[in-house]
Amino acid sequence: MMERIDAQLAFLTEADKLKSILRATTLCDGSRRENTGEHSWHIALYAMVMAEHAQRPVDINRVIKMLLIHDIVEIDAGDTPIHGDHDPAEMAAIEQAAATRIFGLLPANQAQAFRALWDEFEASATDDAIFAKSIDRVQPVISNIESGGGTWPQYNVTAEQLQTRVGVKVQRGAPAIWDALKARIDAWFAQSRSSSE
Amino acid sequence: MMERIDAQLAFLTEADKLKSILRATTLCDGSRRENTGEHSWHIALYAMVMAEHAQRPVDINRVIKMLLIHDIVEIDAGDTPIHGDHDPAEMAAIEQAAATRIFGLLPANQAQAFRALWDEFEASATDDAIFAKSIDRVQPVISNIESGGGTWPQYNVTAEQLQTRVGVKVQRGAPAIWDALKARIDAWFAQSRSSSE
Repeated sequence: MMERIDAQLAFLTEADKLKSILRATTLCDGSRRENTGEHSWHIALYAMVMAEHAQRPVDINRVIKMLLIHDIVEIDAGDTPIHGDHDPAEMAAIEQAAATRIFGLLPANQAQAFRALWDEFEASATDDAIFAKSIDRVQPVISNIESGGGTWPQYNVTAEQLQTRVGVKVQRGAPAIWDALKARIDAWFAQSRSSSE
Repeated sequence: MMERIDAQLAFLTEADKLKSILRATTLCDGSRRENTGEHSWHIALYAMVMAEHAQRPVDINRVIKMLLIHDIVEIDAGDTPIHGDHDPAEMAAIEQAAATRIFGLLPANQAQAFRALWDEFEASATDDAIFAKSIDRVQPVISNIESGGGTWPQYNVTAEQLQTRVGVKVQRGAPAIWDALKARIDAWFAQSRSSSE
Protein backbone atom coordinates (compact mmCIF):
# COMPACT_ATOMS: atom_id res chain seq x y z
CA MET A 1 0.00 0.00 0.00
CA MET A 2 2.74 2.48 1.01
CA GLU A 3 4.65 1.63 -2.14
CA ARG A 4 1.57 2.48 -4.22
CA ILE A 5 1.09 5.82 -2.46
CA ASP A 6 4.78 6.62 -2.89
CA ALA A 7 4.51 6.01 -6.65
CA GLN A 8 1.31 8.07 -6.86
CA LEU A 9 2.88 10.97 -4.96
CA ALA A 10 5.97 10.80 -7.21
CA PHE A 11 3.71 11.22 -10.25
CA LEU A 12 1.68 14.02 -8.65
CA THR A 13 4.84 15.87 -7.58
CA GLU A 14 6.27 15.54 -11.10
CA ALA A 15 2.96 16.89 -12.45
CA ASP A 16 3.57 20.10 -10.45
CA LYS A 17 6.10 21.10 -13.14
CA LEU A 18 3.25 21.66 -15.60
CA LYS A 19 2.60 24.92 -13.72
CA SER A 20 5.92 26.23 -15.06
CA ILE A 21 5.28 25.41 -18.73
CA LEU A 22 4.22 28.62 -20.47
CA ARG A 23 1.79 28.73 -23.39
CA ALA A 24 1.57 31.24 -26.23
CA THR A 25 -1.76 32.62 -24.96
CA THR A 26 -2.11 35.05 -22.07
CA LEU A 27 -4.69 35.28 -19.31
CA CYS A 28 -7.91 37.02 -20.37
CA ASP A 29 -6.67 40.26 -18.77
CA GLY A 30 -3.43 40.05 -20.79
CA SER A 31 -1.34 40.39 -17.60
CA ARG A 32 0.92 37.39 -18.24
CA ARG A 33 1.25 34.18 -20.27
CA GLU A 34 -0.89 31.26 -19.22
CA ASN A 35 0.74 28.09 -17.90
CA THR A 36 -0.33 24.59 -18.86
CA GLY A 37 -1.44 23.61 -15.34
CA GLU A 38 -4.03 26.38 -15.04
CA HIS A 39 -5.01 25.87 -18.72
CA SER A 40 -5.76 22.22 -17.91
CA TRP A 41 -8.04 23.28 -15.06
CA HIS A 42 -9.81 25.84 -17.19
CA ILE A 43 -10.60 23.48 -20.07
CA ALA A 44 -11.80 20.74 -17.70
CA LEU A 45 -14.22 23.38 -16.39
CA TYR A 46 -15.10 24.36 -19.99
CA ALA A 47 -15.96 20.72 -20.71
CA MET A 48 -18.05 20.44 -17.54
CA VAL A 49 -20.04 23.57 -18.49
CA MET A 50 -20.24 22.95 -22.27
CA ALA A 51 -20.97 19.19 -22.32
CA GLU A 52 -24.49 19.73 -23.69
CA HIS A 53 -23.06 21.14 -26.94
CA ALA A 54 -21.17 17.98 -27.92
CA GLN A 55 -22.04 17.01 -31.50
CA ARG A 56 -22.38 13.34 -30.51
CA PRO A 57 -23.14 11.82 -27.07
CA VAL A 58 -20.07 11.80 -24.81
CA ASP A 59 -19.19 10.46 -21.38
CA ILE A 60 -18.34 13.82 -19.86
CA ASN A 61 -16.54 12.20 -16.91
CA ARG A 62 -14.08 10.52 -19.28
CA VAL A 63 -13.69 13.78 -21.21
CA ILE A 64 -12.83 15.68 -18.02
CA LYS A 65 -10.25 13.07 -16.98
CA MET A 66 -8.77 13.16 -20.48
CA LEU A 67 -8.44 16.94 -20.31
CA LEU A 68 -6.83 16.83 -16.86
CA ILE A 69 -3.92 14.79 -18.29
CA HIS A 70 -3.97 15.79 -21.98
CA ASP A 71 -1.00 18.17 -21.80
CA ILE A 72 1.10 16.50 -19.10
CA VAL A 73 3.73 15.46 -21.67
CA GLU A 74 4.58 19.16 -22.04
CA ILE A 75 6.69 18.78 -18.88
CA ASP A 76 9.28 17.20 -21.19
CA ALA A 77 8.10 18.38 -24.61
CA GLY A 78 7.12 22.00 -23.95
CA ASP A 79 4.11 23.72 -25.47
CA THR A 80 3.68 23.72 -29.26
CA PRO A 81 1.78 26.84 -30.39
CA ILE A 82 -0.65 25.95 -33.20
CA HIS A 83 0.36 29.06 -35.14
CA GLY A 84 4.11 28.34 -34.79
CA ASP A 85 6.51 26.23 -36.89
CA HIS A 86 7.42 22.73 -35.76
CA ASP A 87 8.04 19.25 -37.20
CA PRO A 88 4.94 17.19 -36.29
CA ALA A 89 6.74 13.81 -36.52
CA GLU A 90 9.58 14.96 -34.28
CA MET A 91 7.12 16.47 -31.76
CA ALA A 92 5.10 13.26 -31.71
CA ALA A 93 8.20 11.18 -30.94
CA ILE A 94 9.20 13.52 -28.08
CA GLU A 95 5.67 13.42 -26.66
CA GLN A 96 5.51 9.62 -26.84
CA ALA A 97 8.76 9.37 -24.86
CA ALA A 98 7.42 11.90 -22.35
CA ALA A 99 4.22 9.90 -21.89
CA THR A 100 6.22 6.73 -21.26
CA ARG A 101 8.39 8.43 -18.66
CA ILE A 102 5.75 10.47 -16.83
CA PHE A 103 2.84 8.00 -16.73
CA GLY A 104 5.47 5.35 -15.92
CA LEU A 105 5.90 6.94 -12.48
CA LEU A 106 2.43 5.65 -11.51
CA PRO A 107 1.69 2.11 -10.25
CA ALA A 108 1.54 -0.21 -13.30
CA ASN A 109 -2.26 -0.52 -13.58
CA GLN A 110 -2.70 3.27 -13.41
CA ALA A 111 0.22 3.93 -15.75
CA GLN A 112 -1.54 1.77 -18.32
CA ALA A 113 -4.99 3.33 -17.81
CA PHE A 114 -3.71 6.93 -17.91
CA ARG A 115 -1.60 6.20 -20.98
CA ALA A 116 -4.57 4.63 -22.76
CA LEU A 117 -6.66 7.73 -22.03
CA TRP A 118 -3.89 10.02 -23.30
CA ASP A 119 -3.42 7.86 -26.44
CA GLU A 120 -7.16 8.09 -27.06
CA PHE A 121 -7.05 11.90 -26.81
CA GLU A 122 -4.09 12.07 -29.18
CA ALA A 123 -5.70 9.74 -31.75
CA SER A 124 -8.85 11.89 -31.76
CA ALA A 125 -10.97 9.06 -33.13
CA THR A 126 -13.59 8.45 -30.39
CA ASP A 127 -16.51 10.77 -29.65
CA ASP A 128 -15.04 11.59 -26.22
CA ALA A 129 -11.64 12.51 -27.69
CA ILE A 130 -13.15 14.54 -30.53
CA PHE A 131 -15.17 16.63 -28.06
CA ALA A 132 -12.15 16.99 -25.75
CA LYS A 133 -10.03 18.25 -28.67
CA SER A 134 -12.76 20.75 -29.59
CA ILE A 135 -12.86 22.16 -26.09
CA ASP A 136 -9.06 22.41 -26.00
CA ARG A 137 -9.30 24.77 -29.01
CA VAL A 138 -12.13 26.91 -27.65
CA GLN A 139 -10.51 28.39 -24.56
CA PRO A 140 -7.50 30.05 -26.30
CA VAL A 141 -9.87 31.80 -28.75
CA ILE A 142 -11.73 33.36 -25.84
CA SER A 143 -8.45 34.33 -24.12
CA ASN A 144 -7.23 35.97 -27.33
CA ILE A 145 -10.44 37.93 -27.87
CA GLU A 146 -10.62 39.01 -24.21
CA SER A 147 -7.00 40.20 -24.21
CA GLY A 148 -7.48 42.27 -27.38
CA GLY A 149 -6.38 39.76 -30.01
CA GLY A 150 -3.72 38.08 -27.88
CA THR A 151 -1.15 36.30 -30.03
CA TRP A 152 -3.04 36.79 -33.35
CA PRO A 153 -1.31 40.05 -34.36
CA GLN A 154 2.06 38.59 -33.29
CA TYR A 155 1.61 35.55 -35.56
CA ASN A 156 -0.25 37.59 -38.27
CA VAL A 157 -3.19 35.24 -37.96
CA THR A 158 -6.20 35.85 -40.24
CA ALA A 159 -9.85 34.92 -39.72
CA GLU A 160 -9.43 32.38 -42.56
CA GLN A 161 -6.48 30.71 -40.81
CA LEU A 162 -8.52 30.49 -37.61
CA GLN A 163 -11.27 28.75 -39.57
CA THR A 164 -8.73 26.19 -40.88
CA ARG A 165 -6.58 25.67 -37.78
CA VAL A 166 -9.21 26.03 -35.07
CA GLY A 167 -12.68 26.13 -36.60
CA VAL A 168 -12.51 22.74 -38.28
CA LYS A 169 -11.59 21.04 -35.00
CA VAL A 170 -14.15 22.87 -32.90
CA GLN A 171 -16.87 22.24 -35.51
CA ARG A 172 -16.10 18.53 -35.55
CA GLY A 173 -16.89 18.13 -31.85
CA ALA A 174 -19.06 21.12 -30.97
CA PRO A 175 -20.45 23.06 -33.97
CA ALA A 176 -22.76 25.24 -31.89
CA ILE A 177 -19.81 26.56 -29.88
CA TRP A 178 -17.94 27.37 -33.10
CA ASP A 179 -20.94 29.40 -34.32
CA ALA A 180 -20.72 31.47 -31.14
CA LEU A 181 -16.94 31.88 -31.43
CA LYS A 182 -17.14 32.71 -35.14
CA ALA A 183 -19.42 35.65 -34.44
CA ARG A 184 -16.95 36.95 -31.85
CA ILE A 185 -13.94 36.34 -34.13
CA ASP A 186 -15.56 38.15 -37.07
CA ALA A 187 -16.44 41.08 -34.82
CA TRP A 188 -12.86 41.25 -33.54
CA PHE A 189 -11.31 41.23 -37.03
CA ALA A 190 -13.81 43.79 -38.33
CA GLN A 191 -12.97 46.11 -35.45
CA SER A 192 -9.23 45.41 -35.82
CA ARG A 193 -9.36 46.30 -39.54
CA SER A 194 -11.32 49.46 -38.97
CA SER A 195 -8.97 50.66 -36.22
CA SER A 196 -5.85 50.07 -38.38
CA GLU A 197 -7.25 51.97 -41.39
CA MET B 1 -29.11 28.30 -27.66
CA MET B 2 -26.86 31.34 -28.34
CA GLU B 3 -28.10 32.95 -25.14
CA ARG B 4 -27.09 29.81 -23.22
CA ILE B 5 -23.63 29.75 -24.76
CA ASP B 6 -23.21 33.47 -24.04
CA ALA B 7 -24.01 32.88 -20.36
CA GLN B 8 -21.67 29.88 -20.20
CA LEU B 9 -18.83 31.84 -21.80
CA ALA B 10 -19.43 34.73 -19.38
CA PHE B 11 -19.00 32.31 -16.45
CA LEU B 12 -15.92 30.66 -17.99
CA THR B 13 -14.32 34.03 -18.72
CA GLU B 14 -14.99 35.19 -15.16
CA ALA B 15 -13.41 31.92 -13.92
CA ASP B 16 -10.17 32.95 -15.65
CA LYS B 17 -9.59 35.37 -12.74
CA LEU B 18 -8.92 32.42 -10.44
CA LYS B 19 -5.49 32.21 -12.11
CA SER B 20 -4.60 35.53 -10.49
CA ILE B 21 -5.58 34.56 -6.93
CA LEU B 22 -2.41 33.67 -5.04
CA ARG B 23 -2.27 31.06 -2.28
CA ALA B 24 0.09 30.88 0.70
CA THR B 25 1.85 27.78 -0.67
CA THR B 26 4.48 27.86 -3.40
CA LEU B 27 5.12 25.50 -6.30
CA CYS B 28 7.10 22.38 -5.32
CA ASP B 29 10.30 24.03 -6.59
CA GLY B 30 9.65 27.09 -4.41
CA SER B 31 9.99 29.42 -7.42
CA ARG B 32 6.75 31.35 -6.85
CA ARG B 33 3.40 31.25 -5.04
CA GLU B 34 0.78 28.92 -6.43
CA ASN B 35 -2.44 30.34 -7.85
CA THR B 36 -5.87 28.90 -7.21
CA GLY B 37 -6.51 27.95 -10.85
CA GLU B 38 -3.51 25.64 -11.12
CA HIS B 39 -4.15 24.38 -7.56
CA SER B 40 -7.65 23.36 -8.67
CA TRP B 41 -6.22 21.38 -11.59
CA HIS B 42 -3.65 19.71 -9.38
CA ILE B 43 -6.09 18.51 -6.74
CA ALA B 44 -8.55 17.24 -9.37
CA LEU B 45 -5.61 15.16 -10.64
CA TYR B 46 -4.79 14.14 -7.05
CA ALA B 47 -8.35 12.89 -6.63
CA MET B 48 -8.24 11.01 -9.95
CA VAL B 49 -5.01 9.26 -8.89
CA MET B 50 -5.84 8.74 -5.21
CA ALA B 51 -9.50 7.66 -5.47
CA GLU B 52 -8.74 4.12 -4.27
CA HIS B 53 -7.68 5.45 -0.86
CA ALA B 54 -11.04 6.98 0.01
CA GLN B 55 -12.17 5.78 3.44
CA ARG B 56 -15.70 5.18 2.20
CA PRO B 57 -16.92 4.52 -1.38
CA VAL B 58 -17.10 7.74 -3.43
CA ASP B 59 -18.30 8.72 -6.88
CA ILE B 60 -14.94 9.97 -8.11
CA ASN B 61 -16.52 11.81 -11.04
CA ARG B 62 -18.58 13.95 -8.65
CA VAL B 63 -15.51 14.49 -6.47
CA ILE B 64 -13.49 15.75 -9.46
CA LYS B 65 -16.27 18.14 -10.52
CA MET B 66 -16.55 19.37 -6.93
CA LEU B 67 -12.81 20.07 -6.81
CA LEU B 68 -12.85 21.89 -10.15
CA ILE B 69 -15.25 24.49 -8.69
CA HIS B 70 -14.48 24.27 -4.94
CA ASP B 71 -12.38 27.46 -4.77
CA ILE B 72 -14.06 29.58 -7.45
CA VAL B 73 -15.50 31.91 -4.79
CA GLU B 74 -11.94 33.08 -4.12
CA ILE B 75 -12.32 35.36 -7.15
CA ASP B 76 -14.27 37.63 -4.80
CA ALA B 77 -13.23 36.32 -1.37
CA GLY B 78 -9.48 35.70 -1.85
CA ASP B 79 -7.57 32.76 -0.39
CA THR B 80 -7.78 32.09 3.35
CA PRO B 81 -4.56 30.40 4.57
CA ILE B 82 -5.38 27.71 7.15
CA HIS B 83 -2.54 28.87 9.37
CA GLY B 84 -3.58 32.54 9.20
CA ASP B 85 -6.05 34.60 11.27
CA HIS B 86 -9.54 35.27 9.97
CA ASP B 87 -13.14 35.47 11.19
CA PRO B 88 -14.84 32.26 9.96
CA ALA B 89 -18.38 33.74 10.06
CA GLU B 90 -17.37 36.82 8.09
CA MET B 91 -15.47 34.70 5.53
CA ALA B 92 -18.47 32.39 5.12
CA ALA B 93 -20.77 35.34 4.40
CA ILE B 94 -18.35 36.73 1.79
CA GLU B 95 -18.04 33.32 0.15
CA GLN B 96 -21.81 32.81 0.06
CA ALA B 97 -22.25 36.15 -1.73
CA ALA B 98 -19.44 35.21 -4.14
CA ALA B 99 -21.10 31.88 -4.93
CA THR B 100 -24.39 33.64 -5.65
CA ARG B 101 -22.74 36.14 -7.98
CA ILE B 102 -20.35 33.81 -9.84
CA PHE B 103 -22.52 30.71 -10.30
CA GLY B 104 -25.35 33.13 -11.11
CA LEU B 105 -23.61 33.94 -14.39
CA LEU B 106 -24.49 30.45 -15.68
CA PRO B 107 -27.85 29.48 -17.23
CA ALA B 108 -30.34 28.91 -14.38
CA ASN B 109 -30.30 25.09 -14.34
CA GLN B 110 -26.50 25.00 -14.28
CA ALA B 111 -26.26 27.81 -11.72
CA GLN B 112 -28.41 25.69 -9.42
CA ALA B 113 -26.49 22.43 -10.05
CA PHE B 114 -23.05 24.02 -9.60
CA ARG B 115 -24.16 25.85 -6.47
CA ALA B 116 -25.55 22.62 -5.00
CA LEU B 117 -22.24 20.86 -5.64
CA TRP B 118 -20.30 23.74 -4.03
CA ASP B 119 -22.68 23.80 -1.04
CA GLU B 120 -22.14 20.05 -0.63
CA PHE B 121 -18.36 20.54 -0.61
CA GLU B 122 -18.62 23.33 1.94
CA ALA B 123 -20.93 21.34 4.25
CA SER B 124 -18.51 18.40 4.19
CA ALA B 125 -21.21 15.94 5.23
CA THR B 126 -21.39 13.48 2.31
CA ASP B 127 -18.76 10.83 1.54
CA ASP B 128 -17.87 12.60 -1.72
CA ALA B 129 -17.37 15.96 0.01
CA ILE B 130 -15.39 14.43 2.89
CA PHE B 131 -12.97 12.80 0.45
CA ALA B 132 -12.74 16.00 -1.64
CA LYS B 133 -11.88 18.02 1.51
CA SER B 134 -9.19 15.46 2.42
CA ILE B 135 -7.56 15.73 -0.98
CA ASP B 136 -7.68 19.53 -0.81
CA ARG B 137 -5.50 19.30 2.35
CA VAL B 138 -3.01 16.77 0.96
CA GLN B 139 -1.50 18.73 -1.91
CA PRO B 140 -0.25 21.76 0.14
CA VAL B 141 1.56 19.39 2.54
CA ILE B 142 3.48 17.88 -0.36
CA SER B 143 4.24 21.34 -1.80
CA ASN B 144 5.55 22.49 1.58
CA ILE B 145 7.76 19.44 2.07
CA GLU B 146 9.08 19.60 -1.51
CA SER B 147 9.92 23.30 -1.20
CA GLY B 148 11.82 22.81 2.06
CA GLY B 149 9.05 23.49 4.58
CA GLY B 150 7.27 26.13 2.52
CA THR B 151 5.14 28.38 4.69
CA TRP B 152 5.58 26.33 7.92
CA PRO B 153 8.58 28.26 9.27
CA GLN B 154 6.89 31.56 8.32
CA TYR B 155 3.77 30.68 10.33
CA ASN B 156 5.79 28.83 13.05
CA VAL B 157 3.76 25.70 12.39
CA THR B 158 4.50 22.62 14.51
CA ALA B 159 3.96 18.93 13.69
CA GLU B 160 1.22 18.92 16.37
CA GLN B 161 -0.60 21.83 14.70
CA LEU B 162 -0.44 20.00 11.37
CA GLN B 163 -2.03 16.99 13.04
CA THR B 164 -4.90 19.18 14.31
CA ARG B 165 -5.40 21.49 11.33
CA VAL B 166 -4.63 19.09 8.49
CA GLY B 167 -4.31 15.54 9.79
CA VAL B 168 -7.80 15.28 11.24
CA LYS B 169 -9.37 16.29 7.91
CA VAL B 170 -7.17 14.04 5.77
CA GLN B 171 -7.70 11.10 8.15
CA ARG B 172 -11.46 11.55 7.98
CA GLY B 173 -11.55 10.94 4.23
CA ALA B 174 -8.32 9.12 3.42
CA PRO B 175 -6.45 7.72 6.46
CA ALA B 176 -3.92 5.76 4.38
CA ILE B 177 -2.78 8.95 2.68
CA TRP B 178 -2.35 10.66 6.05
CA ASP B 179 -0.13 7.78 7.21
CA ALA B 180 2.11 8.41 4.20
CA LEU B 181 2.14 12.19 4.77
CA LYS B 182 2.75 11.82 8.51
CA ALA B 183 5.93 9.84 7.86
CA ARG B 184 7.15 12.62 5.54
CA ILE B 185 6.12 15.38 7.96
CA ASP B 186 7.88 13.73 10.92
CA ALA B 187 11.03 13.27 8.83
CA TRP B 188 10.92 16.93 7.80
CA PHE B 189 10.53 18.24 11.37
CA ALA B 190 13.25 15.88 12.68
CA GLN B 191 15.64 17.13 10.02
CA SER B 192 14.57 20.75 10.58
CA ARG B 193 15.23 20.47 14.37
CA SER B 194 18.63 18.83 13.89
CA SER B 195 19.74 21.46 11.36
CA SER B 196 18.73 24.35 13.68
CA GLU B 197 20.56 22.94 16.72
